[in-house]
This record gives sequence, structure tokens and C-alpha cells, in this order.
Amino acid sequence: MADTKIETKLFWEELAATKRQTLASSIPEEWAIPPHMLPAESVLDVATWPATSGWFTPDELAITSRSAGDLLSMLASGQLTSEAVTRAFCKRAAAAHQLTNCLSETCFDRAIASAKARDDALAQTGKPIGPLHGLPISLKDSFNLRGVDSVVGISAYIGDPAQSDATLVQLLEKAGAVFYVKTSVPTAMLIGETVNNVLGRTVNPLNRKTTSGGSSGGESSLIAMKGSPLGIGTDIAGSLRMPAACTGLFTLRPSFGRFPSRNCRSSLPGQEALLAVNGPIASTLADVELYSKIVVDAQPWLQDPKCLPIPWRPVEVPAKLRIAVMWHDGHVRPTPPVTRALREITSKLKLAGHEVIDWDTVEQKHGLSLLMRMIVADGGKIIDKLLEKTGEPWRAELWYHRAAAELSTSEMWQLQAERSMFQTRYLDLWNEAGIDAILCPTMAFNTVENGKFRHLGYTGVFNVLDYPAVSFPTGLAVDKTVDKPDPAYIPLGPDCEAINTEYNEHLMHGMPISLQLVARRLEEERLLAMCRRVLEAVG
Amino acid sequence: MADTKIETKLFWEELAATKRQTLASSIPEEWAIPPHMLPAESVLDVATWPATSGWFTPDELAITSRSAGDLLSMLASGQLTSEAVTRAFCKRAAAAHQLTNCLSETCFDRAIASAKARDDALAQTGKPIGPLHGLPISLKDSFNLRGVDSVVGISAYIGDPAQSDATLVQLLEKAGAVFYVKTSVPTAMLIGETVNNVLGRTVNPLNRKTTSGGSSGGESSLIAMKGSPLGIGTDIAGSLRMPAACTGLFTLRPSFGRFPSRNCRSSLPGQEALLAVNGPIASTLADVELYSKIVVDAQPWLQDPKCLPIPWRPVEVPAKLRIAVMWHDGHVRPTPPVTRALREITSKLKLAGHEVIDWDTVEQKHGLSLLMRMIVADGGKIIDKLLEKTGEPWRAELWYHRAAAELSTSEMWQLQAERSMFQTRYLDLWNEAGIDAILCPTMAFNTVENGKFRHLGYTGVFNVLDYPAVSFPTGLAVDKTVDKPDPAYIPLGPDCEAINTEYNEHLMHGMPISLQLVARRLEEERLLAMCRRVLEAVG
Repeated sequence: MADTKIETKLFWEELAATKRQTLASSIPEEWAIPPHMLPAESVLDVATWPATSGWFTPDELAITSRSAGDLLSMLASGQLTSEAVTRAFCKRAAAAHQLTNCLSETCFDRAIASAKARDDALAQTGKPIGPLHGLPISLKDSFNLRGVDSVVGISAYIGDPAQSDATLVQLLEKAGAVFYVKTSVPTAMLIGETVNNVLGRTVNPLNRKTTSGGSSGGESSLIAMKGSPLGIGTDIAGSLRMPAACTGLFTLRPSFGRFPSRNCRSSLPGQEALLAVNGPIASTLADVELYSKIVVDAQPWLQDPKCLPIPWRPVEVPAKLRIAVMWHDGHVRPTPPVTRALREITSKLKLAGHEVIDWDTVEQKHGLSLLMRMIVADGGKIIDKLLEKTGEPWRAELWYHRAAAELSTSEMWQLQAERSMFQTRYLDLWNEAGIDAILCPTMAFNTVENGKFRHLGYTGVFNVLDYPAVSFPTGLAVDKTVDKPDPAYIPLGPDCEAINTEYNEHLMHGMPISLQLVARRLEEERLLAMCRRVLEAVG
Repeated sequence: MADTKIETKLFWEELAATKRQTLASSIPEEWAIPPHMLPAESVLDVATWPATSGWFTPDELAITSRSAGDLLSMLASGQLTSEAVTRAFCKRAAAAHQLTNCLSETCFDRAIASAKARDDALAQTGKPIGPLHGLPISLKDSFNLRGVDSVVGISAYIGDPAQSDATLVQLLEKAGAVFYVKTSVPTAMLIGETVNNVLGRTVNPLNRKTTSGGSSGGESSLIAMKGSPLGIGTDIAGSLRMPAACTGLFTLRPSFGRFPSRNCRSSLPGQEALLAVNGPIASTLADVELYSKIVVDAQPWLQDPKCLPIPWRPVEVPAKLRIAVMWHDGHVRPTPPVTRALREITSKLKLAGHEVIDWDTVEQKHGLSLLMRMIVADGGKIIDKLLEKTGEPWRAELWYHRAAAELSTSEMWQLQAERSMFQTRYLDLWNEAGIDAILCPTMAFNTVENGKFRHLGYTGVFNVLDYPAVSFPTGLAVDKTVDKPDPAYIPLGPDCEAINTEYNEHLMHGMPISLQLVARRLEEERLLAMCRRVLEAVG
């Protein structure tokens, strides 16, 4: 009895410290940045460090600078070995971690062994083993890898390694992918920045004073550092799109059922009113497309009961699109650079002959209200129980979950019925407007100073609707000389005021500005094709 | 104040009596069976009455004896007018109601006007207005028809006519269908027989001492009487398949998202753990296929946010199928005729070269347990509130809902997570067995004496899984000389014992025996093609 008591009393800080120690020491010496080469904490942009530090070989830099698509061609032809590619990304991911604290787990041995097996197979058969032959892919912490923890920022999950690989991992591995790291997330993947009591904070490599977003912010930091050519994140309210936008990357939040989610760590198991999905983050739209097609072509519905048997469909998109622009959501007016990006892209779309109309934002506030009520319908009980196990304290960012009252099932059914009515009205608005897509901010800002994240309404409403959405970098960057706070600005409410007051053109100068493109439910193929059209128009 | 009190005190019996009166008087005199022609209550089989009574003209009998497919050809070519067809079905539906109490609403005026409009359009353009040109289709009471009540057996809903047609109704009407009646359901559509406090009991026209099933038992009675060539019902735990099986008809319970459900009366609005679907009931498999293709071809996902953009897909089914037979579900052993049908069909499948294996029933009980917990997770609150509005008493059949304790949202999430694990294990079993379909009873019996319904496990587990399932008549009928109770029978439990003790070969003699064929989720096209293969093997 005494023994048991001591065990259950293990303080969360001890667990967390051990975890951090294990993670740090999992990086072999050859990939540990020599202390004298480490940039000072005051250096904010560390994304350029790998290319300028001299710590990487030209070959390593060349490999890690390529897109996933390019790497796959070179791997399939034998021009590059998987081992060389994998080692290069392991090293660069290790560097990324040391500069941004983006990793949660490493499995470098598994990676090198996989890579060698890929190379052997190609040598023996002359053929790649699948469409992802030899490509390292990074995974958000919630994807189960056999023998590796899926902590998702909660100390209670430390030391509980996955029994088997997630279905998506199995599928990608069969296609030839190599797994080498998992990436950090906020506590229970429920904060818009990547910070948790176990591993601390992940920062944005483009400016370490700012966030790389959440909850897939470990991924976005890693990929922005070119420590991964392609990463997989998840999204229940914006967790793919916000990190991609914070770091100038591409992502697709698919509708539920396109990509498998079986055997992953869920933050709220059994919560289904809002459906969590997973998707790719990458440096190019082509890589997002390539990945999506490969996953769906593998017929995941044969393995995951939640997947839909919808093949990857060839699409033809009209030459001239009809796009509705949402300038603001009626809740928070975007900061000056985001509004400027919307204006500039809209002008270019018009110039390219596309039809652009204004989107009526009346329903957006209601969508956000639904999201906020559904996500805490258990009154924070599930998280509370997990934290209690190790005595881990609630993080302040989760106050909303902590303060929520649990609903009864009949109240929850009422809420779900209200949500279905909302989905119906939104579809009617879409049909009445006769639009192909909505163009809108991904977030009210390009990114924010660490700790200042607010308002996930721009992404979250499309989770409530289950519409597919892409976040894409516009090619524009914040310019402190033009993106000054508007003195005539009138806030729409307290969040709007806080966000626009906190906006600092000097801190954000040079950071990328992303936007969001949204399509009808389950039209991922069409959405990606439309995004390509938009990029063409932008030039 | 006094006035208000009187109004809110309106006794449910008064409301119900008025409703019955309105329904009865909605049948015009020309379609009221002359009292001297009405068969005595002791006449059990009334399905033959229309052909033998002399009350129908040969033309009316010829029209109402045709399949939907045949009628559509004749309507499209102008060989039959929609008005003649509609009038014939109105009259026969009126007769069916007078003999089995199967209707809930009539809208004969709307029907005749629609029919005439169809005829005019054809005369003017030379073309049918759509693939359902001029065909009368009957609707379960839950489908909203503008200006008509959707009472679903609950007095509180009396006098609350629908503001607009259901999305499915709009779609079918655009395709040319004509609406003329809605059909009765049990209270809140939650009983396996069709009986409610407002309209009373619907009986099986093949034997009025037995039930036509529930909750789409108004439809099955009407169609078995040939009072409708095609009807639409709904299914949350077997509500399409059980009525079809009780009356020897074909039906398809599709997976959720194939057919639109927008703007229908739901018995448990917002309940989504178990998804209610709708589907056709008809006399032939071809009619079920024809209807399904037409609905999906109309792209319902453009109008209903819950529909999936999966077109009606051409399928090729292998010549030799691998079918798993579930002889019993580990809970209730089927009655002798059902077991005989399973044996005979299995033999014929083997003779035709199909591979037949036994299905492991271990998971079935768990599936049923999940169903039973999910369907009452609100502790019966929603129904209780509805009944309270008019002082309507709970029906005894709903004791299980009345007795249930409401779950909290965190408990519900736990239950949903358990359900997802169940879906995953079942899919694994399916994959391990490498089967194309499961063949099993639709119910533990062919039908039962009125009031004796028990056990919806055979159908309900496939609702938990969201697998598509067909109930089809085997062509076999109960034969009292061979389907005698088995003296060596050992019950699997109390329900098993009750059902097998209550089985009466004399009462059931001559009644049709149906079975169920089940496919992978969202493989409706393949399921129907496989059912055709099975019918071919049966010969």
C-alpha cells in the first residue's frame, strides 16, 4: 500500500523534467549544435541560421531545401538515397528543436533503419516501394508511433508508449515514408499557441518573440526551419491553419472522413459534435496536393470506420471563379497587414477576371458561439481528470475549459440540433450567393507575440461547418511602413480592440501574411485546384 | 389567464379524437368502402380484398398491381396518365387505411392537382418532367409536407402543420413524383410496431392479428396492400427493415448521408450518436434501386449539409461472393421459419458457387448494448416533455426510455468513444474474414402477434455500425407442417425464450420470411447488386 501511494503521488514536475531530459538526450552528439554556434536568445529570426551558420554541409542544405515532391522524384530515381535524406532532415530537425523547442519525440534509429530498408529495396527491385518512397515525414505528437509516447502536452500521458502505429502512419509507411520525429503541441491540443507544462513553449523560427501557432505549432516551427519536408497536424478549430499561417506555410484542413484518424491520441475522446481532422503542412501547395492524393488513393476507408469511400477525384475548375470575400467576421477586425493582403489579393483576382463579392458575416458570430459551447460541453471534466492524475495545474490559457459547466445529454442534443440548423442556413447562403469559395483571413493577425493569442473564429466556424479550408501564404509580408495601425479604427468588441491594440508593426515587420480559402464540404480536390487558381492570379 | 389555462389543459384525448376524425373525413365518399363490403374483423388476410371484392375496376387493379418501374415507363410514354394512376392509388390507399389503419394524413387534392400538372406538361412538351414523372409516392409521417401535420404519433404535434416541404420531398417532386398520403408510425417512431395514442394501431394486411412492424409500419401495410407503388420510411434501429420483413417487401437502409433528411420531424432532435436515415420500401428490388439512383443523381448534398457528395456509382460484383452467415446473434435464436430460410438460402448460395462462412457473433451483443444505451442517453427527457405538453401518457412499450437515467456529456462522450472502438473492431473482423456481405435474419421472427414485438438486435447493430442493409423476402413462407417449434431448443436468454415460446406456427402459416443482407459502410450500390446475385441464386 505504501509503495502504491508513493507512486500515485509522483509530482507532475518530476515526470515533465524526466521527459524533457529524455528528449534532449535523444539527440545524438553529432546533431547537437556546438554551444559556441548557438545564436543568442536575442536573435529573433533563426530560420536563416542553418544556411548561414556553416554547421550544415552544402549537401545537407541542398537536400533540406527541396520540396517533398522534388525529393520524391530524386529518391525514386535513386539520385538521392533515403538514408542521406533522412540523416539530413534528422540533423536539421535537431537544430530546429534546439532553436525553437519544436519536437516532442524523436525516433532517429527507427528512421535510419527504415531509410536503409527503403534504399535496399530500391537497389534490389529497381522500384520505389511506394509513392512516398524514402521521404521523411514529421508527425504531430498525437499520432501514435509504436513504442513512443503520445503525451500531447499532458504529464499523465508520459511513460505510456503507443502499442501500435496509427492507421495513417501504417498507410504512409506502406507508401514508403520514414518517421523520425514527433512535434510538440499545447496542453491537450486546445490552445492557439504551442505551450504546455511538460515541454514548455515552442516559438516561431521567423521571429522567436512570436508564436508559431497551435495546436500544430511544433510542426509549423519545424517545417518553417526546413527540418521537415512535410508534416502532419490536426485541426479541430484551426489547429492546422493557424500554425501554417503564423509561419507562411500551406495546409489543408480536410472535411472529416477523407484522411484516417484511427489510433491517434485524442484530447477529448468521444467528442463528436466538432470533428477533429488531420492534414498536411508543407512549403508548397503541390506538396499538400501530392500528400492528399496519396492518402486517399490508399483507400483508408477500408481500415478506418470513420473514413468515407470517396476516391481522389479529378476536377475541372471554371476559368473564372466566383469568390466571396469576408473582410471581417463581425467579431474581430483583422490587423492592418491582413486587411491589406485581403485587399491586394482581391484586386488581383478581379484583374485576373474572377468575380468577387462581399460575404455576409451575419452567421459567423453564431458559428463561433456554437464552437465555443460544443468544445467545453463536458465542463472541462476530461482534462481535469487527466491533470488530477499527476497533480498538474491547469494552464491559464485553458480558463475557458476550466470555467465551463457540463451539459446534460439533452442539452447537448439541443446544441447539436442548433448546430445542424446553422449548417443548413450557411449552405443556403452559399447557394444563394452562387459562389465557388470564400476568401477570408486565416486569423485576425499574421501572428502574435508569444502569449497573446486570441480569437479562433476565422478558422473555427469552418470546423463547425466541416468545410475544407486551405491556409496559404499570399507572398506578401508585413511592412511596417504601410501596415500601421489605423487611427480611424473602431473596434467591433473587446477581442477586436485587444488584438488591434496589441498589433505591433515593428515586431511583425517582414513576417508572412496568409489567407484562407474555403470550399463546400468534402470538395478538397476542388479547393486545392481553386487555391492554385488564386495563386496564379496573385502571380 | 383563465382562458390560457383552459387552452393549455386541452386533454390529449380530445386532440387525438379530432385528428382521427379529420383523417377519416379526409377520405371522400367515392373512396369509402361501402359498409356492407367491409370484411369482418375476423378476416385476417385483407391483402387479397381489393382484387376479390369487386370494389375496384379492372383498370384500377391493373394500375395498382404494377411495379413502380413499370408505371414509370407507362407514365413517361403517355400510356397511362398520372391522374389515372394517382386516382387508383388514392382509392387503394383509402381502402388500405380502412382495412389496416395505416395512414396518418391524406392530401388527395394536392395529389390530383400535381398529377394533372404532370399530364399537361407531358402533353405540352412531349417529355416527362423527370425520372419519377407522375408516380405517386407515399411518405412516412415524419416527412414534412407543406400545410400538413407531422404528428409522428405524439399528440403535442397535432395542429402544427409543416411550413415547407422536406428537402427529399422537394427533390422527388422536381423529379415528377406525386404525394398523396402520409403513413402512421408508433409514438416518436421508437416502437417496433406501429401503435400510438393518437391514431391507434396499424395492422399487417397479410394477417391482421400480426404487426406490420415499426416504425415504418404504416408504409409497409400500405405497400403490402398495393396502396402505394413506392414508399419512404426511416430507420434508426431497424424501422425500415422490420416493417418490410413483416410484410414481405424490399427495403434499403442506406448509410447516413446518401439520402437527404433535412426538414423532417425527428423524434430526438440533435441526437447524433445513432444516425437516423431514410430509404425506400417497395415490392421489387428493382424499384428500390431505381429510387436510390434517382435520389443520389439529384445531388442532394447541394441542398442538405448532412449529405455526402458520393454519386451513384456503377458497380461490378464478383461472380462468386464470399458471404458470412449469422445464424443467431448470441442473444435471440430465430424462430424455426427464419432459421429454415437461412438454411435454404445458404444451401442455394453454395449451389450457385458462392462461398459461405459462419459469422462470429461475439460482437453483436455489445453492439446492441451500445444501441440501447445511446438511444436513451437523454433519460427519455425529450419525449417526456412532449407528452407533458398535452398530458399524454407514456405508452407501456416505451418503458425503457421512461426508466432511463440521463447521461452527462462526459458520460456520453465515453459512450461514443466505446461505440467508435466497436466500429473499429467490427471492421477488423470484416477485413479478417475477407467477406463481401453478411447474411442474417432481419428479425428473430417473420412477424409477431400484435403487441408481442421484442428484440431489434438483428437490425440495430448495423445502425450502430452505419452499414447499409437490405431486407428482402426470400420467396419462402412459413409452413406450419415444417416450421414447428424445436423441442430440443435451448434458449440463449429471456428474450430468446419469450420469442420462441410465443412463436405460433398456426398463426404464422403462409406469412412471408425475409432475411437481411449487409455490406460495408456506404456501399449501397454494391449491396443492391449483391442482393440481386442472392436472388438469382435463390431462383
